[in-house]
Amino acid sequence: MSNIDRSYDYLPGISIDCVIFGFHDSQLKILLLNFKNTDWFAVPGGFIKENENLDEAAQRILEERTGLTNIYLEQFYVFGDKNRRSNEVLKALMLAVDGKELSPDHYLMKRFLSIGYYALIDFTKATPSPDALSNTCEWYDIDTIPTLIYDHSEMVKKALSTLRFFLDEKLIGFNLLPEVFTMNDLQNLYETVLDTKLLRTNFQRKMLSLGILERLDKKMTGAANKAPYLYRFTGNS
Amino acid sequence: MSNIDRSYDYLPGISIDCVIFGFHDSQLKILLLNFKNTDWFAVPGGFIKENENLDEAAQRILEERTGLTNIYLEQFYVFGDKNRRSNEVLKALMLAVDGKELSPDHYLMKRFLSIGYYALIDFTKATPSPDALSNTCEWYDIDTIPTLIYDHSEMVKKALSTLRFFLDEKLIGFNLLPEVFTMNDLQNLYETVLDTKLLRTNFQRKMLSLGILERLDKKMTGAANKAPYLYRFTGNS
Repeated sequence: MSNIDRSYDYLPGISIDCVIFGFHDSQLKILLLNFKNTDWFAVPGGFIKENENLDEAAQRILEERTGLTNIYLEQFYVFGDKNRRSNEVLKALMLAVDGKELSPDHYLMKRFLSIGYYALIDFTKATPSPDALSNTCEWYDIDTIPTLIYDHSEMVKKALSTLRFFLDEKLIGFNLLPEVFTMNDLQNLYETVLDTKLLRTNFQRKMLSLGILERLDKKMTGAANKAPYLYRFTGNS
Repeated sequence: MSNIDRSYDYLPGISIDCVIFGFHDSQLKILLLNFKNTDWFAVPGGFIKENENLDEAAQRILEERTGLTNIYLEQFYVFGDKNRRSNEVLKALMLAVDGKELSPDHYLMKRFLSIGYYALIDFTKATPSPDALSNTCEWYDIDTIPTLIYDHSEMVKKALSTLRFFLDEKLIGFNLLPEVFTMNDLQNLYETVLDTKLLRTNFQRKMLSLGILERLDKKMTGAANKAPYLYRFTGNS
Protein backbone atom coordinates (compact mmCIF):
# COMPACT_ATOMS: atom_id res chain seq x y z
CA MET A 1 0.00 0.00 0.00
CA SER A 2 2.96 2.30 -0.64
CA ASN A 3 1.47 4.39 -3.43
CA ILE A 4 -2.10 5.00 -2.45
CA ASP A 5 -2.45 8.25 -4.38
CA ARG A 6 -1.51 6.75 -7.73
CA SER A 7 -4.46 4.45 -8.21
CA TYR A 8 -4.82 5.32 -11.89
CA ASP A 9 -1.69 3.34 -12.62
CA TYR A 10 -2.87 0.15 -11.00
CA LEU A 11 -5.31 -2.69 -11.61
CA PRO A 12 -8.47 -2.11 -9.55
CA GLY A 13 -9.55 -4.26 -6.64
CA ILE A 14 -6.49 -6.49 -6.50
CA SER A 15 -3.35 -6.41 -4.40
CA ILE A 16 -0.30 -8.58 -3.82
CA ASP A 17 0.86 -9.52 -0.33
CA CYS A 18 4.24 -11.11 0.29
CA VAL A 19 5.26 -13.48 3.04
CA ILE A 20 9.04 -13.09 2.94
CA PHE A 21 10.97 -15.84 4.70
CA GLY A 22 14.52 -15.58 5.95
CA PHE A 23 16.65 -17.91 8.06
CA HIS A 24 19.08 -16.76 10.72
CA ASP A 25 20.47 -18.07 14.02
CA SER A 26 18.42 -21.28 13.73
CA GLN A 27 15.24 -19.26 13.41
CA LEU A 28 12.81 -19.01 10.56
CA LYS A 29 11.81 -15.37 10.22
CA ILE A 30 9.44 -13.22 8.21
CA LEU A 31 9.54 -9.54 7.32
CA LEU A 32 6.80 -7.39 8.84
CA LEU A 33 5.88 -3.74 8.56
CA ASN A 34 4.75 -1.70 11.53
CA PHE A 35 2.31 1.03 10.50
CA LYS A 36 3.18 4.54 11.63
CA ASN A 37 1.64 5.71 14.92
CA THR A 38 0.09 2.31 15.59
CA ASP A 39 1.00 -1.08 16.98
CA TRP A 40 -0.48 -2.73 13.89
CA PHE A 41 1.60 -5.02 11.72
CA ALA A 42 1.27 -6.41 8.23
CA VAL A 43 3.21 -8.39 5.64
CA PRO A 44 4.56 -6.18 2.84
CA GLY A 45 2.26 -5.63 -0.11
CA GLY A 46 1.46 -3.51 -3.09
CA PHE A 47 -0.52 -3.20 -6.28
CA ILE A 48 -0.12 -4.32 -9.87
CA LYS A 49 0.69 -1.74 -12.54
CA GLU A 50 -1.25 -1.79 -15.79
CA ASN A 51 1.91 -2.71 -17.71
CA GLU A 52 3.31 -5.32 -15.31
CA ASN A 53 2.95 -9.06 -15.35
CA LEU A 54 1.94 -10.52 -11.99
CA ASP A 55 5.36 -11.92 -11.14
CA GLU A 56 7.03 -8.65 -12.15
CA ALA A 57 4.80 -6.77 -9.72
CA ALA A 58 5.71 -9.19 -6.95
CA GLN A 59 9.44 -8.88 -7.74
CA ARG A 60 9.17 -5.08 -7.66
CA ILE A 61 7.37 -5.10 -4.31
CA LEU A 62 9.98 -7.46 -2.89
CA GLU A 63 12.84 -5.37 -4.22
CA GLU A 64 11.34 -2.23 -2.66
CA ARG A 65 11.28 -3.91 0.76
CA THR A 66 14.52 -5.92 0.66
CA GLY A 67 16.82 -4.28 -1.89
CA LEU A 68 17.17 -7.67 -3.61
CA THR A 69 16.45 -8.60 -7.21
CA ASN A 70 15.81 -12.05 -8.70
CA ILE A 71 14.21 -13.33 -5.55
CA TYR A 72 12.77 -16.85 -5.39
CA LEU A 73 9.03 -16.35 -5.16
CA GLU A 74 5.84 -18.24 -5.90
CA GLN A 75 2.15 -17.51 -5.80
CA PHE A 76 0.52 -19.67 -3.17
CA TYR A 77 -3.09 -18.54 -2.79
CA VAL A 78 -5.62 -15.86 -3.65
CA PHE A 79 -7.36 -14.47 -0.60
CA GLY A 80 -10.83 -13.50 -1.72
CA ASP A 81 -13.38 -13.77 1.07
CA LYS A 82 -15.77 -10.88 0.82
CA ASN A 83 -15.17 -9.89 4.44
CA ARG A 84 -11.43 -10.44 4.49
CA ARG A 85 -10.68 -6.73 4.92
CA SER A 86 -12.59 -4.53 7.32
CA ASN A 87 -13.22 -0.99 6.06
CA GLU A 88 -13.46 0.19 9.66
CA VAL A 89 -9.94 -1.04 10.35
CA LEU A 90 -8.76 0.48 7.07
CA LYS A 91 -10.24 3.88 7.95
CA ALA A 92 -8.76 3.84 11.43
CA LEU A 93 -5.42 2.80 9.98
CA MET A 94 -5.25 5.59 7.39
CA LEU A 95 -6.35 8.13 9.94
CA ALA A 96 -3.59 7.07 12.31
CA VAL A 97 -0.89 6.82 9.66
CA ASP A 98 -1.32 10.18 7.96
CA GLY A 99 -4.43 11.85 9.35
CA LYS A 100 -6.45 11.18 6.20
CA GLU A 101 -10.16 10.47 6.39
CA LEU A 102 -10.99 8.04 3.60
CA SER A 103 -14.25 8.89 1.87
CA PRO A 104 -16.71 6.04 1.28
CA ASP A 105 -16.05 6.14 -2.46
CA HIS A 106 -12.25 6.04 -2.14
CA TYR A 107 -10.94 3.18 -4.28
CA LEU A 108 -9.33 1.53 -1.26
CA MET A 109 -12.77 1.17 0.32
CA LYS A 110 -13.89 -1.19 -2.42
CA ARG A 111 -13.55 -4.92 -2.12
CA PHE A 112 -10.01 -6.18 -2.71
CA LEU A 113 -8.69 -9.62 -3.54
CA SER A 114 -5.09 -10.27 -2.63
CA ILE A 115 -2.71 -12.64 -4.36
CA GLY A 116 -0.40 -14.19 -1.79
CA TYR A 117 3.24 -14.74 -2.77
CA TYR A 118 5.86 -16.33 -0.61
CA ALA A 119 9.50 -15.45 -1.08
CA LEU A 120 12.66 -17.12 0.18
CA ILE A 121 15.72 -14.95 0.61
CA ASP A 122 19.22 -15.09 1.96
CA PHE A 123 18.82 -13.25 5.26
CA THR A 124 22.39 -11.96 5.19
CA LYS A 125 21.87 -10.13 1.90
CA ALA A 126 18.58 -8.33 2.55
CA THR A 127 18.33 -4.67 3.56
CA PRO A 128 14.79 -4.27 4.85
CA SER A 129 13.22 -0.85 4.39
CA PRO A 130 9.76 0.38 5.40
CA ASP A 131 7.18 1.70 2.93
CA ALA A 132 5.46 5.09 3.00
CA LEU A 133 2.87 3.95 5.54
CA SER A 134 5.20 2.24 7.99
CA ASN A 135 7.84 3.05 10.57
CA THR A 136 9.79 -0.14 10.41
CA CYS A 137 10.34 -3.19 8.26
CA GLU A 138 11.92 -5.86 10.42
CA TRP A 139 12.43 -9.58 10.84
CA TYR A 140 10.28 -11.47 13.32
CA ASP A 141 10.70 -15.04 14.46
CA ILE A 142 7.88 -17.11 13.01
CA ASP A 143 7.00 -18.31 16.52
CA THR A 144 6.60 -14.84 18.00
CA ILE A 145 5.00 -12.65 15.38
CA PRO A 146 2.69 -9.88 16.59
CA THR A 147 -1.00 -9.76 15.71
CA LEU A 148 -1.45 -8.86 12.05
CA ILE A 149 -4.19 -6.85 10.38
CA TYR A 150 -6.93 -8.21 8.14
CA ASP A 151 -6.32 -11.84 7.14
CA HIS A 152 -2.53 -11.53 7.22
CA SER A 153 -2.16 -14.13 9.98
CA GLU A 154 -3.97 -16.61 7.75
CA MET A 155 -1.63 -15.64 4.90
CA VAL A 156 1.43 -16.38 7.01
CA LYS A 157 -0.01 -19.69 8.18
CA LYS A 158 -0.81 -20.78 4.65
CA ALA A 159 2.56 -19.62 3.30
CA LEU A 160 4.34 -21.59 6.01
CA SER A 161 2.42 -24.78 5.29
CA THR A 162 3.21 -24.31 1.58
CA LEU A 163 6.90 -23.85 2.35
CA ARG A 164 6.90 -27.02 4.48
CA PHE A 165 5.07 -28.96 1.82
CA PHE A 166 7.48 -27.99 -0.96
CA LEU A 167 10.69 -28.12 1.05
CA ASP A 168 11.35 -31.69 -0.05
CA GLU A 169 9.26 -31.80 -3.19
CA LYS A 170 10.87 -28.85 -4.90
CA LEU A 171 14.11 -28.44 -2.91
CA ILE A 172 13.33 -24.79 -2.39
CA GLY A 173 15.06 -24.52 0.98
CA PHE A 174 18.42 -23.68 -0.57
CA ASN A 175 17.08 -20.23 -1.36
CA LEU A 176 17.18 -19.54 2.36
CA LEU A 177 20.90 -20.33 2.69
CA PRO A 178 24.02 -18.45 1.66
CA GLU A 179 25.76 -19.79 -1.44
CA VAL A 180 28.00 -22.14 0.54
CA PHE A 181 26.97 -23.97 3.68
CA THR A 182 27.81 -26.97 5.80
CA MET A 183 25.69 -30.11 6.07
CA ASN A 184 24.88 -28.95 9.61
CA ASP A 185 23.57 -25.63 8.29
CA LEU A 186 21.35 -27.49 5.88
CA GLN A 187 20.03 -29.91 8.49
CA ASN A 188 19.45 -27.01 10.87
CA LEU A 189 17.35 -25.28 8.19
CA TYR A 190 15.25 -28.38 7.52
CA GLU A 191 14.72 -29.02 11.22
CA THR A 192 13.67 -25.44 11.81
CA VAL A 193 11.28 -25.18 8.89
CA LEU A 194 9.75 -28.59 9.53
CA ASP A 195 9.83 -28.04 13.29
CA THR A 196 11.16 -31.52 13.91
CA LYS A 197 14.45 -33.27 14.70
CA LEU A 198 16.07 -35.34 11.94
CA LEU A 199 18.60 -38.14 12.24
CA ARG A 200 21.99 -36.81 11.16
CA THR A 201 23.16 -39.86 9.22
CA ASN A 202 19.85 -40.37 7.43
CA PHE A 203 19.57 -36.72 6.53
CA GLN A 204 23.11 -36.59 5.16
CA ARG A 205 22.69 -39.78 3.16
CA LYS A 206 19.45 -38.59 1.64
CA MET A 207 20.78 -35.17 0.69
CA LEU A 208 23.93 -36.59 -0.87
CA SER A 209 21.92 -39.21 -2.78
CA LEU A 210 19.93 -36.51 -4.57
CA GLY A 211 22.93 -35.43 -6.62
CA ILE A 212 22.22 -31.75 -6.07
CA LEU A 213 25.20 -30.79 -3.90
CA GLU A 214 28.73 -29.98 -4.91
CA ARG A 215 31.31 -30.58 -2.16
CA LEU A 216 33.84 -27.76 -1.79
CA ASP A 217 36.77 -27.23 0.57
CA LYS A 218 36.54 -27.69 4.29
CA LYS A 219 35.37 -24.82 6.42
CA MET A 220 38.53 -23.57 8.12
CA THR A 221 37.50 -22.99 11.69
CA GLY A 222 38.70 -24.93 14.71
CA ALA A 223 40.71 -28.12 14.41
CA ALA A 224 41.33 -29.16 10.81
CA ASN A 225 40.41 -32.79 11.44
CA LYS A 226 36.98 -31.76 12.66
CA ALA A 227 36.37 -29.08 10.05
CA PRO A 228 33.16 -29.75 8.15
CA TYR A 229 32.96 -29.69 4.38
CA LEU A 230 31.26 -26.83 2.64
CA TYR A 231 28.65 -27.52 -0.04
CA ARG A 232 26.99 -25.62 -2.82
CA PHE A 233 23.55 -26.32 -4.30
CA THR A 234 23.89 -27.19 -7.98
CA GLY A 235 20.21 -27.61 -8.90
CA ASN A 236 18.11 -30.67 -9.44
CA SER A 237 17.95 -31.05 -13.20
CA MET B 1 -18.44 -15.13 -19.67
CA SER B 2 -22.11 -15.99 -19.42
CA ASN B 3 -23.42 -12.67 -18.16
CA ILE B 4 -21.55 -10.04 -20.08
CA ASP B 5 -24.27 -7.40 -19.78
CA ARG B 6 -24.40 -7.46 -16.00
CA SER B 7 -20.95 -6.10 -15.27
CA TYR B 8 -22.22 -3.87 -12.46
CA ASP B 9 -22.74 -6.95 -10.31
CA TYR B 10 -19.23 -8.27 -10.65
CA LEU B 11 -15.71 -7.49 -9.46
CA PRO B 12 -13.81 -5.63 -12.19
CA GLY B 13 -10.87 -7.05 -14.11
CA ILE B 14 -10.96 -10.54 -12.64
CA SER B 15 -12.45 -13.80 -13.84
CA ILE B 16 -12.49 -17.43 -12.80
CA ASP B 17 -11.70 -20.24 -15.24
CA CYS B 18 -12.38 -23.86 -14.39
CA VAL B 19 -10.57 -26.94 -15.61
CA ILE B 20 -13.17 -29.62 -14.87
CA PHE B 21 -11.83 -33.17 -14.85
CA GLY B 22 -13.89 -36.30 -15.29
CA PHE B 23 -12.91 -39.94 -15.73
CA HIS B 24 -14.68 -42.38 -18.03
CA ASP B 25 -13.78 -45.45 -20.09
CA SER B 26 -10.18 -45.31 -18.95
CA GLN B 27 -9.88 -41.75 -20.19
CA LEU B 28 -9.23 -38.57 -18.31
CA LYS B 29 -11.50 -35.90 -19.74
CA ILE B 30 -12.16 -32.19 -19.39
CA LEU B 31 -15.25 -30.13 -20.11
CA LEU B 32 -14.94 -27.60 -22.93
CA LEU B 33 -17.26 -25.00 -24.39
CA ASN B 34 -17.52 -24.38 -28.12
CA PHE B 35 -18.38 -20.74 -28.86
CA LYS B 36 -21.39 -20.19 -31.14
CA ASN B 37 -20.64 -19.81 -34.85
CA THR B 38 -16.94 -20.52 -34.37
CA ASP B 39 -14.57 -23.46 -33.98
CA TRP B 40 -13.08 -21.83 -30.90
CA PHE B 41 -13.03 -23.64 -27.59
CA ALA B 42 -12.50 -22.62 -23.98
CA VAL B 43 -12.70 -23.97 -20.47
CA PRO B 44 -15.82 -22.79 -18.62
CA GLY B 45 -15.49 -19.54 -16.75
CA GLY B 46 -17.29 -16.64 -15.18
CA PHE B 47 -17.03 -13.64 -12.92
CA ILE B 48 -17.19 -13.00 -9.18
CA LYS B 49 -20.23 -11.27 -7.73
CA GLU B 50 -19.73 -8.44 -5.25
CA ASN B 51 -21.34 -10.51 -2.50
CA GLU B 52 -19.65 -13.85 -3.22
CA ASN B 53 -16.56 -15.37 -1.71
CA LEU B 54 -14.11 -16.70 -4.29
CA ASP B 55 -14.89 -20.35 -3.71
CA GLU B 56 -18.62 -19.64 -3.82
CA ALA B 57 -18.22 -18.03 -7.23
CA ALA B 58 -16.29 -21.06 -8.48
CA GLN B 59 -18.94 -23.45 -7.11
CA ARG B 60 -21.69 -21.43 -8.81
CA ILE B 61 -19.87 -21.46 -12.15
CA LEU B 62 -19.32 -25.20 -11.86
CA GLU B 63 -22.93 -25.85 -10.93
CA GLU B 64 -24.12 -23.83 -13.94
CA ARG B 65 -22.05 -26.01 -16.27
CA THR B 66 -22.47 -29.44 -14.64
CA GLY B 67 -25.66 -29.37 -12.57
CA LEU B 68 -23.61 -30.55 -9.58
CA THR B 69 -23.24 -28.94 -6.16
CA ASN B 70 -20.53 -29.49 -3.57
CA ILE B 71 -17.89 -30.18 -6.16
CA TYR B 72 -14.29 -30.85 -5.15
CA LEU B 73 -12.38 -27.82 -6.36
CA GLU B 74 -9.18 -25.96 -5.62
CA GLN B 75 -7.51 -22.81 -6.81
CA PHE B 76 -4.30 -23.70 -8.59
CA TYR B 77 -2.91 -20.52 -10.17
CA VAL B 78 -3.65 -16.92 -11.08
CA PHE B 79 -3.01 -16.19 -14.72
CA GLY B 80 -1.93 -12.56 -14.87
CA ASP B 81 0.41 -11.91 -17.77
CA LYS B 82 -0.44 -8.55 -19.28
CA ASN B 83 -0.77 -10.04 -22.76
CA ARG B 84 -2.59 -13.22 -21.77
CA ARG B 85 -5.80 -12.18 -23.53
CA SER B 86 -5.85 -10.62 -26.97
CA ASN B 87 -8.46 -7.92 -27.45
CA GLU B 88 -8.46 -8.64 -31.17
CA VAL B 89 -9.47 -12.24 -30.51
CA LEU B 90 -12.05 -11.06 -27.99
CA LYS B 91 -13.60 -8.63 -30.48
CA ALA B 92 -13.71 -11.24 -33.24
CA LEU B 93 -15.22 -13.71 -30.81
CA MET B 94 -18.02 -11.44 -29.62
CA LEU B 95 -18.77 -10.41 -33.17
CA ALA B 96 -19.10 -14.04 -34.23
CA VAL B 97 -21.10 -15.13 -31.21
CA ASP B 98 -23.79 -12.46 -31.22
CA GLY B 99 -22.90 -9.84 -33.79
CA LYS B 100 -21.86 -7.31 -31.15
CA GLU B 101 -19.05 -4.87 -31.83
CA LEU B 102 -17.27 -4.25 -28.52
CA SER B 103 -16.35 -0.60 -28.07
CA PRO B 104 -12.80 0.14 -26.90
CA ASP B 105 -14.08 1.24 -23.49
CA HIS B 106 -16.22 -1.87 -22.90
CA TYR B 107 -15.28 -3.37 -19.57
CA LEU B 108 -14.32 -6.67 -21.21
CA MET B 109 -11.63 -4.83 -23.20
CA LYS B 110 -9.73 -3.97 -20.03
CA ARG B 111 -6.98 -6.17 -18.66
CA PHE B 112 -8.28 -9.26 -16.87
CA LEU B 113 -6.59 -11.58 -14.43
CA SER B 114 -8.05 -15.06 -14.18
CA ILE B 115 -8.03 -17.31 -11.16
CA GLY B 116 -7.67 -20.92 -12.27
CA TYR B 117 -9.64 -23.57 -10.40
CA TYR B 118 -9.52 -27.27 -11.08
CA ALA B 119 -12.49 -29.44 -10.23
CA LEU B 120 -12.82 -33.20 -9.97
CA ILE B 121 -16.23 -34.68 -10.59
CA ASP B 122 -17.94 -38.02 -10.96
CA PHE B 123 -18.41 -38.21 -14.72
CA THR B 124 -21.56 -40.30 -14.41
CA LYS B 125 -23.38 -37.65 -12.39
CA ALA B 126 -22.65 -34.52 -14.43
CA THR B 127 -25.08 -32.98 -16.90
CA PRO B 128 -22.99 -30.59 -18.97
CA SER B 129 -24.79 -27.55 -20.34
CA PRO B 130 -23.44 -24.69 -22.48
CA ASP B 131 -23.45 -21.05 -21.39
CA ALA B 132 -25.01 -18.10 -23.23
CA LEU B 133 -22.04 -17.71 -25.56
CA SER B 134 -21.59 -21.36 -26.52
CA ASN B 135 -23.24 -24.07 -28.57
CA THR B 136 -21.98 -27.05 -26.69
CA CYS B 137 -20.44 -28.06 -23.39
CA GLU B 138 -18.86 -31.47 -23.86
CA TRP B 139 -16.21 -33.83 -22.57
CA TYR B 140 -12.91 -34.12 -24.44
CA ASP B 141 -10.17 -36.65 -23.87
CA ILE B 142 -7.21 -34.87 -22.35
CA ASP B 143 -5.00 -36.23 -25.14
CA THR B 144 -7.10 -34.87 -27.97
CA ILE B 145 -8.39 -31.48 -26.92
CA PRO B 146 -8.89 -28.87 -29.65
CA THR B 147 -6.95 -25.61 -29.71
CA LEU B 148 -8.17 -23.30 -26.95
CA ILE B 149 -8.43 -19.51 -26.89
CA TYR B 150 -6.21 -17.12 -24.94
CA ASP B 151 -4.01 -18.94 -22.43
CA HIS B 152 -6.50 -21.74 -21.80
CA SER B 153 -4.13 -24.44 -23.07
CA GLU B 154 -1.61 -23.31 -20.47
CA MET B 155 -4.37 -23.45 -17.84
CA VAL B 156 -5.19 -27.04 -18.74
CA LYS B 157 -1.53 -28.03 -18.70
CA LYS B 158 -0.97 -26.47 -15.30
CA ALA B 159 -4.17 -27.93 -13.87
CA LEU B 160 -3.14 -31.39 -15.07
CA SER B 161 0.31 -31.14 -13.51
CA THR B 162 -1.32 -29.99 -10.26
CA LEU B 163 -3.73 -32.94 -10.35
CA ARG B 164 -0.83 -35.35 -10.89
CA PHE B 165 1.19 -33.75 -8.13
CA PHE B 166 -1.59 -33.98 -5.57
CA LEU B 167 -2.99 -37.36 -6.58
CA ASP B 168 -0.87 -39.13 -3.98
CA GLU B 169 -0.22 -36.26 -1.63
CA LYS B 170 -3.83 -35.35 -0.99
CA LEU B 171 -5.65 -38.47 -2.22
CA ILE B 172 -7.88 -36.34 -4.37
CA GLY B 173 -8.41 -38.95 -7.08
CA PHE B 174 -11.39 -40.49 -5.32
CA ASN B 175 -13.42 -37.46 -6.35
CA LEU B 176 -13.20 -38.76 -9.90
CA LEU B 177 -14.77 -42.14 -9.05
CA PRO B 178 -18.32 -43.19 -8.22
CA GLU B 179 -19.00 -43.86 -4.56
CA VAL B 180 -18.10 -47.55 -4.83
CA PHE B 181 -15.41 -48.97 -7.06
CA THR B 182 -13.14 -51.94 -7.49
CA MET B 183 -9.40 -51.95 -6.89
CA ASN B 184 -9.03 -52.24 -10.67
CA ASP B 185 -11.10 -49.09 -11.18
CA LEU B 186 -8.84 -47.27 -8.76
CA GLN B 187 -5.63 -48.51 -10.35
CA ASN B 188 -7.00 -47.66 -13.78
CA LEU B 189 -7.65 -44.10 -12.60
CA TYR B 190 -4.14 -43.71 -11.18
CA GLU B 191 -2.53 -45.16 -14.28
CA THR B 192 -4.54 -42.87 -16.53
CA VAL B 193 -3.94 -39.67 -14.60
CA LEU B 194 -0.25 -40.41 -14.07
CA ASP B 195 0.09 -41.79 -17.60
CA THR B 196 2.10 -44.74 -16.38
CA LYS B 197 1.65 -48.46 -15.62
CA LEU B 198 1.67 -49.54 -11.99
CA LEU B 199 2.37 -52.98 -10.51
CA ARG B 200 -0.93 -54.47 -9.38
CA THR B 201 0.30 -56.04 -6.14
CA ASN B 202 2.29 -53.01 -5.07
CA PHE B 203 -0.55 -50.64 -5.85
CA GLN B 204 -3.09 -52.72 -3.93
CA ARG B 205 -0.79 -53.11 -0.92
CA LYS B 206 -0.08 -49.40 -0.81
CA MET B 207 -3.72 -48.36 -1.11
CA LEU B 208 -4.85 -50.81 1.56
CA SER B 209 -2.05 -49.74 3.90
CA LEU B 210 -3.31 -46.15 3.92
CA GLY B 211 -6.40 -47.06 5.92
CA ILE B 212 -8.65 -44.99 3.73
CA LEU B 213 -10.73 -47.71 2.08
CA GLU B 214 -13.70 -49.62 3.41
CA ARG B 215 -14.19 -53.03 1.81
CA LEU B 216 -17.79 -53.77 0.87
CA ASP B 217 -19.47 -56.76 -0.79
CA LYS B 218 -18.18 -58.37 -3.93
CA LYS B 219 -19.24 -56.98 -7.26
CA MET B 220 -21.75 -59.49 -8.59
CA THR B 221 -20.79 -59.91 -12.20
CA GLY B 222 -19.34 -63.04 -13.81
CA ALA B 223 -18.16 -65.97 -11.77
CA ALA B 224 -18.52 -65.47 -8.02
CA ASN B 225 -15.07 -66.82 -7.26
CA LYS B 226 -13.50 -64.20 -9.52
CA ALA B 227 -15.76 -61.33 -8.47
CA PRO B 228 -13.73 -58.37 -7.22
CA TYR B 229 -14.46 -56.62 -3.97
CA LEU B 230 -16.02 -53.20 -4.01
CA TYR B 231 -14.49 -50.40 -1.95
CA ARG B 232 -15.56 -47.04 -0.63
CA PHE B 233 -13.28 -44.12 0.20
CA THR B 234 -13.59 -43.24 3.88
CA GLY B 235 -11.25 -40.24 4.06
CA ASN B 236 -7.75 -39.83 5.32
CA SER B 237 -8.14 -38.33 8.76
